[in-house]
Amino acid sequence: MRFHRIACLASVSVAAAMVATAPAKADEGMWTFDNFPAEAMRDTYGWAPDQAWLDKVQKGAVRLTGGCSASFVSPKGLILTNHHCIATCLFDNSTSAEDLLDAGFIAARNSDEKMCPGQQAEVVTKITDVTGDVKASFAGLSGDALARARDAKIAEIEKANCTDLATTRCQVVTLFGGGQYKLYTYRKYSDVRLVWAPEDRAATFGGDPDNFNFPRYSLDASFLRAYENGKPVSTPDHLVWNPRAPQEGELTFVVGNPGSTSRLNTQSQLAFEREVRLPITVATLSELRGRLIRAMDESPEHAREGLDTLSGVENSLKVYIGRTKALNDPAFTGKLAAAEADLKAQSADNDAIGDPWAAVEQAVAAYRDLYIPYRFNQPSGELFAYAQSLVFAAQERGKPNGERLPGYTDSSLPLMEKSLLDAKPIYPWLDELMMGWSLSKAREYLGVDDPQSKLLLGRESPEQLAERLVTNTKLADPAVRKALWDGGLAAIQASDDPMIQYALRLAPLQREQITAVREAYSGPLAIAGGQLADARFAAYGDSLYPDATFTLRISYGQVKGWTERGQEVPIATTMGGTFERATGNAPFDLAPAFAANKAKIDPSVTYDFVSTNDIIGGNSGSPVIDRNGTVIGAAFDGNIHSLGGNYGYDGTLNRTVSVSTAAVQEALEKIYPAPHIVAELKRR
Amino acid sequence: MRFHRIACLASVSVAAAMVATAPAKADEGMWTFDNFPAEAMRDTYGWAPDQAWLDKVQKGAVRLTGGCSASFVSPKGLILTNHHCIATCLFDNSTSAEDLLDAGFIAARNSDEKMCPGQQAEVVTKITDVTGDVKASFAGLSGDALARARDAKIAEIEKANCTDLATTRCQVVTLFGGGQYKLYTYRKYSDVRLVWAPEDRAATFGGDPDNFNFPRYSLDASFLRAYENGKPVSTPDHLVWNPRAPQEGELTFVVGNPGSTSRLNTQSQLAFEREVRLPITVATLSELRGRLIRAMDESPEHAREGLDTLSGVENSLKVYIGRTKALNDPAFTGKLAAAEADLKAQSADNDAIGDPWAAVEQAVAAYRDLYIPYRFNQPSGELFAYAQSLVFAAQERGKPNGERLPGYTDSSLPLMEKSLLDAKPIYPWLDELMMGWSLSKAREYLGVDDPQSKLLLGRESPEQLAERLVTNTKLADPAVRKALWDGGLAAIQASDDPMIQYALRLAPLQREQITAVREAYSGPLAIAGGQLADARFAAYGDSLYPDATFTLRISYGQVKGWTERGQEVPIATTMGGTFERATGNAPFDLAPAFAANKAKIDPSVTYDFVSTNDIIGGNSGSPVIDRNGTVIGAAFDGNIHSLGGNYGYDGTLNRTVSVSTAAVQEALEKIYPAPHIVAELKRR
Repeated sequence: MRFHRIACLASVSVAAAMVATAPAKADEGMWTFDNFPAEAMRDTYGWAPDQAWLDKVQKGAVRLTGGCSASFVSPKGLILTNHHCIATCLFDNSTSAEDLLDAGFIAARNSDEKMCPGQQAEVVTKITDVTGDVKASFAGLSGDALARARDAKIAEIEKANCTDLATTRCQVVTLFGGGQYKLYTYRKYSDVRLVWAPEDRAATFGGDPDNFNFPRYSLDASFLRAYENGKPVSTPDHLVWNPRAPQEGELTFVVGNPGSTSRLNTQSQLAFEREVRLPITVATLSELRGRLIRAMDESPEHAREGLDTLSGVENSLKVYIGRTKALNDPAFTGKLAAAEADLKAQSADNDAIGDPWAAVEQAVAAYRDLYIPYRFNQPSGELFAYAQSLVFAAQERGKPNGERLPGYTDSSLPLMEKSLLDAKPIYPWLDELMMGWSLSKAREYLGVDDPQSKLLLGRESPEQLAERLVTNTKLADPAVRKALWDGGLAAIQASDDPMIQYALRLAPLQREQITAVREAYSGPLAIAGGQLADARFAAYGDSLYPDATFTLRISYGQVKGWTERGQEVPIATTMGGTFERATGNAPFDLAPAFAANKAKIDPSVTYDFVSTNDIIGGNSGSPVIDRNGTVIGAAFDGNIHSLGGNYGYDGTLNRTVSVSTAAVQEALEKIYPAPHIVAELKRR
Repeated sequence: MRFHRIACLASVSVAAAMVATAPAKADEGMWTFDNFPAEAMRDTYGWAPDQAWLDKVQKGAVRLTGGCSASFVSPKGLILTNHHCIATCLFDNSTSAEDLLDAGFIAARNSDEKMCPGQQAEVVTKITDVTGDVKASFAGLSGDALARARDAKIAEIEKANCTDLATTRCQVVTLFGGGQYKLYTYRKYSDVRLVWAPEDRAATFGGDPDNFNFPRYSLDASFLRAYENGKPVSTPDHLVWNPRAPQEGELTFVVGNPGSTSRLNTQSQLAFEREVRLPITVATLSELRGRLIRAMDESPEHAREGLDTLSGVENSLKVYIGRTKALNDPAFTGKLAAAEADLKAQSADNDAIGDPWAAVEQAVAAYRDLYIPYRFNQPSGELFAYAQSLVFAAQERGKPNGERLPGYTDSSLPLMEKSLLDAKPIYPWLDELMMGWSLSKAREYLGVDDPQSKLLLGRESPEQLAERLVTNTKLADPAVRKALWDGGLAAIQASDDPMIQYALRLAPLQREQITAVREAYSGPLAIAGGQLADARFAAYGDSLYPDATFTLRISYGQVKGWTERGQEVPIATTMGGTFERATGNAPFDLAPAFAANKAKIDPSVTYDFVSTNDIIGGNSGSPVIDRNGTVIGAAFDGNIHSLGGNYGYDGTLNRTVSVSTAAVQEALEKIYPAPHIVAELKRR
């Protein structure tokens, strides 16, 4: 499970999550560290962590900007995360001759550790409430003006609070869809390197068919290391590695960064999801999946070079298909409707609330008209993404900090610069495929005669345009990107690179659309979201958790199976079970080293296990922590029922799937031997 | 627009259409020839055809068993239909060296005309009401027993009424979802040959992007000829070819065989469509589309060999995506809900009706559980379809006529035999792609651990199994198929052909599922459908049209544009407009002969035109007839609004798109010269 972004420019995207959640049921909730529901947990389980416990855990919890979670597990910057969170790094460090993704990777010493392009590790050091400041900045405003004022204030706060951009990052986060604004300050590590990874097939045994399923046999774990000034960083506040099997019923905490949820979206927002966004998303991604599957069948190179993209697409598709099912299940949607009705009833006498539901409905109605042009205003592909970032950055950097688009403020630029300039391989066939696909979908949904189709395509076909741009651009070369980044707007405007010219051609329309969306949708939602949050606090008190925002959260629960069509699903699998499930045929073929070491592997070692923790994509790689604060697993997936988790949590069915530290330890000792890491994991 | 079947064995499929329609609004309706609403038409237009007019037209109307409509337009068996209706025939007659689909085809003389594999032309000669007999056959029965008794009676009626199977075909049709059963007797012509076809690009100018759109520039017309005993048949009752432009507001009749509609499905059936069937269909077909697009990019051979399949998939997808939009449009579904509420209210005091809505709801609820296994119980691909037909036919032919599955009764076998034994090219890569795709989707939706997945795959992967079966089967050879057909069950059971063995392995499960679906779904629907029809007749009288069933219908309307986002869409395009729309890039590139003859073509000739006639897939190729009974066009598409036409007709927006006879005449004279056909079209 990944928090995976497809064809989405961060600065132009609109957050889907916007409303606060209803009172949480047992084990439900992705809680912020400054509002942990200790009392509720104690009521359920007779124990809850105290502030010291929470503070300690927070210091060891890591966010990976690639879209995952992780934890420090040694004093020397060693990071535990999922294999699927670093697959891109393995991939970017591979060649046809040396396929690290396929073969796995063990760095014998620090100097062998390989840099992960674009990846950055971040630890929260402070959370500050800035709600008053931000809300005051847009008092009395609406629409686009509101959004501009708010974003200017956020840019100002972020800039003022992080002066050392080399080691810190400031981010103002909108919680409860506008009910709260909090400044998160991070210690950041912009040099992250690869230390240890199993073979891809060991991590992805069962492939897409087994994804989001359990029982499961997956070694979805890897290690990275944070560096600074060319040296491993010191991380005395790391979590303690505890390679033991989980026990049925024991308490578990998952600490990480759930990416996004839309729980208690209003009915009109859910209708938009079900009626518009999800059908388009599933149809277009399914076609992309088909194109990729076939293209990868064409040669071993394509198979290798396309794998990372296909995995992301298939993972996303499974999520969106699961969401479609959830929103087409009357029993599930009935609960959501009942929750809205209850909140409305509770708020009926509260004049301060107004009618945010009607405001949201109006905003959503406006967004329905804007959605297709907005969604299809750019092609996919790494090279175009470079061009677009370069063009927007050049244009935005010429403005005062407070007038820029959110992704281009002073606090945002360092990570953007790193992503743009880090060297990594580009595969032209893959970029061409992505561009051709996305442009043909744009034409399909906009219509041939739409002016935007004509702007996107001119008189060329999607395939011709993609081929021409990908073949002729020089942006695959990091030096070319650096020259354009350093040269600013003048260099961009003078560039004869066709991809840059293309991005320049599209930019004015994209800007118009950003303004239109803010005016009719995001602006109104900022106000309505605040009102809905107020309604919720008034009705249910303030022991609530906000929708996920890819910021640090903690979820509590217990190791527990569930009942599937009358059958009890046990809490865990064993490593030995892998050999029984293997058919010899992909994706149920054994990883070679796994197979070769069958005699050495203790078949009874606990492999993967389930717990009731409430997580979602972005939580991948999160440490699973016991009540003593030690790490006993890394969360890597949810079961199939958890796919509705974007909209609501069902404790009887939703489960987190984690790989146990016991299995990782077994792999470190017997399959992918790394005694130096075993030793390092014992250091305190 | 096509009535296209994807991966669907006729005998195992369940008809979706089952309920009668509400009282028709102006121009709405696909009327049977024995119940034309002359009075209503006269009220609207001041004129309506009399019985002599209808009888004459019926005699010239042709059904093509490939899934299209057509008409006789000369006394020598010449048939007008769409190009897209005979694209498969062009394709089956092509080789890499001679691509008839691409280049078009003109037979200089009869002896050059090329046989179309699997194609049969049929003309209705008699319609007999057999409702009493059929209903009596299952009185007091339910579920599977009901379905068996009904099917036995139908087989008996068909067999008794068509003793000369070489020239006649009998088919009992279920109308109004069980309200009426009618015996259709056809004069059949099982030897249909290719006479004239334009270049593919002239017919498909604008390709998938322009499909279901208007203005349109498409020469979607072709000619076939019916043969018997090696000679063109005599068709004195042909319609009269009238190569003139349509006039705004003039009356038009479309006479053909609309394939299937689900208008006034109950709310529970619509919910099933929206929540289950359509999402799965769109997701899986989109992936197939992607696989095909990429595979066709691999070589000119693949591009040629895959085109027919891709066209079908893209056409179907556009239909299903359009239906999804319609069922996600509250304004549209609100009307359907209101119609159901009205019928319920009108029936409230009618004790004879009972509560068929509840019965349908219960049947649909049961079908929801059966649907996924039933849908995914077989792979796609021509070779597997051969194997399955051979296996089922061998098994069924050993039983008495009345005990066989519907597709295998004595009246059905001749067309099945023809489809099985006609020689045509098979492309192994394409069959492998289709099988691999469909098996991987089966595993995806069933789950890896489902017993049906294991039955379908054994321990092989979808791709391995597909490759092994396609590579090793001999069923591409018509002689092998003939030997197995002639050899019957003994030959089938003795066969070591792996595809036959595979089909044998799957057959028991498929039979179990057919029985289960009849028991819980089709059986109950047969009764409820009859009750709903009775309710409708009681409430609205009997001037109603039944849902489409790929049987002969007539729709009346007028040549008329519509208003699109405030703009008037004119009634017609001109041939000259094509040159303005052409970009030079596929699919907006001019067909070579079309381009080469630009100077000769009269740019003012009416090309394609729209009318308010109510049609749907299966109507493709239908003659558009004026009030004098002469042919002025061939219907080939609906506009984008007509995609909701499966569920309901909206006269303000839904339009039929036809190619004018004037344009076809211009092409016959100036682009693809065929003076002998021009002369033949003048003969009476």
